[in-house]
Amino acid sequence: MRMLLTIAYDGSLYAGWQRQPNAPTIQETLESALFRLYKTPVAAQGASRTDAGVHAAGQRAAFDEAGGVSVPTDKLPYALNTFLPDDIRATAARIVPDGFDPIRSAKQKTYEYRIYNGAFMDPCLRRYAEHIRAPLDMRSMRLAAAAFVGERDFAAFRAAGGSARTTVRRILALGVSEAGGLVTIRVTGNGFLYNMVRIIAGTLVYAGTGKLRAQDVPGIIESRDRARAGKTLAAKGLTLVNIDY
Amino acid sequence: MRMLLTIAYDGSLYAGWQRQPNAPTIQETLESALFRLYKTPVAAQGASRTDAGVHAAGQRAAFDEAGGVSVPTDKLPYALNTFLPDDIRATAARIVPDGFDPIRSAKQKTYEYRIYNGAFMDPCLRRYAEHIRAPLDMRSMRLAAAAFVGERDFAAFRAAGGSARTTVRRILALGVSEAGGLVTIRVTGNGFLYNMVRIIAGTLVYAGTGKLRAQDVPGIIESRDRARAGKTLAAKGLTLVNIDY
Repeated sequence: MRMLLTIAYDGSLYAGWQRQPNAPTIQETLESALFRLYKTPVAAQGASRTDAGVHAAGQRAAFDEAGGVSVPTDKLPYALNTFLPDDIRATAARIVPDGFDPIRSAKQKTYEYRIYNGAFMDPCLRRYAEHIRAPLDMRSMRLAAAAFVGERDFAAFRAAGGSARTTVRRILALGVSEAGGLVTIRVTGNGFLYNMVRIIAGTLVYAGTGKLRAQDVPGIIESRDRARAGKTLAAKGLTLVNIDY
Repeated sequence: MRMLLTIAYDGSLYAGWQRQPNAPTIQETLESALFRLYKTPVAAQGASRTDAGVHAAGQRAAFDEAGGVSVPTDKLPYALNTFLPDDIRATAARIVPDGFDPIRSAKQKTYEYRIYNGAFMDPCLRRYAEHIRAPLDMRSMRLAAAAFVGERDFAAFRAAGGSARTTVRRILALGVSEAGGLVTIRVTGNGFLYNMVRIIAGTLVYAGTGKLRAQDVPGIIESRDRARAGKTLAAKGLTLVNIDY
């Protein structure tokens, strides 16, 4: 039976989702837990290759049950968590059709990017938010955010190293909220280019500090020129919140 | 000149505020930074002896400038932070009268106790919130909270080991809020007994899970019997938010 897991993690100590030599990864740690549960090697296919330091509340991973072991679906997260370290939690499981591909089947993804906006960083947020000292103007950030919504060519918001064939993506929602000095950028789209959310967040910070105006955003998008967009903000501020199928 | 610092910290890796042999403490780490800044031993007097694992957003510490070094007050937090690890931040400084006692001069303190209420712990909150699986009824918790407000003898809400002469304290406000599964209990009082906030939080959890009713709270307070109050919740959920002078 093929299963789809929902996975939450604190990415601070991991070199990202994807298995690699000489560095701990989420995939490797999850596959080790699956091995201990099913007593045979199990390959987990992640829905999103989160980068080193990126967190997740709703990553997905698909795998085929193996070794003749079958765990009741509602018990699977609890069973798996007994073999996972406390910075990774399985939070849900469901049965999916054989051959289900968690990447291709994804309809839309939601990310949050968090910024602590104050003179001194909140020590308890130092692994979970970027620190920006300069006061951020929420109204300017929201005006700039609105210009991203829709189907656009986001070539200007893609880091080198991405392998996507097309740079056209549809952003369905992009909101900016603030509470107690913590600014949260929440974005939902049908897909994202490499580092796209972190570059959009950096561009919204430029809008918030007056380095660019909201009305500059359409021109930056049209330029397809990475150099005109904002900085790529740190991985630690990014959380993969949800994937819809 | 005597200075009063505001200090924020992630208490996860510390054996609390107070200096002790063979374990890292906030006081010792702060005094080391003061030593590096003033080039002579400086004693820091904390306003509150937070326990191991407890966090702070607004701890206070007083010290006398020494060694003939004088740092402009507005520059002091920045200077000190260059010598502090990133889990401790000085966030403000002001001049106070000679002999100022940050414990005796405190008018009121505010703490927050955080509980993550869900089937699976949020990994990014594992150091900053208690995990309670059973669904918490907010209305019952708020009704129970109201019964704590006022001047009361809180002997039933004191752990052994406290040295207070009287167990009478005044709670000025006790609120319970919830957002995205995170329940925050916020309490302001003129002073707190040893573990009092963590025991009140445990008692509110009993109210939230139906183990006791809001109308039981006055009787528990009157009993002065620690055994009738709730459990002492974990230190990691507690944050010293502010001290008013």
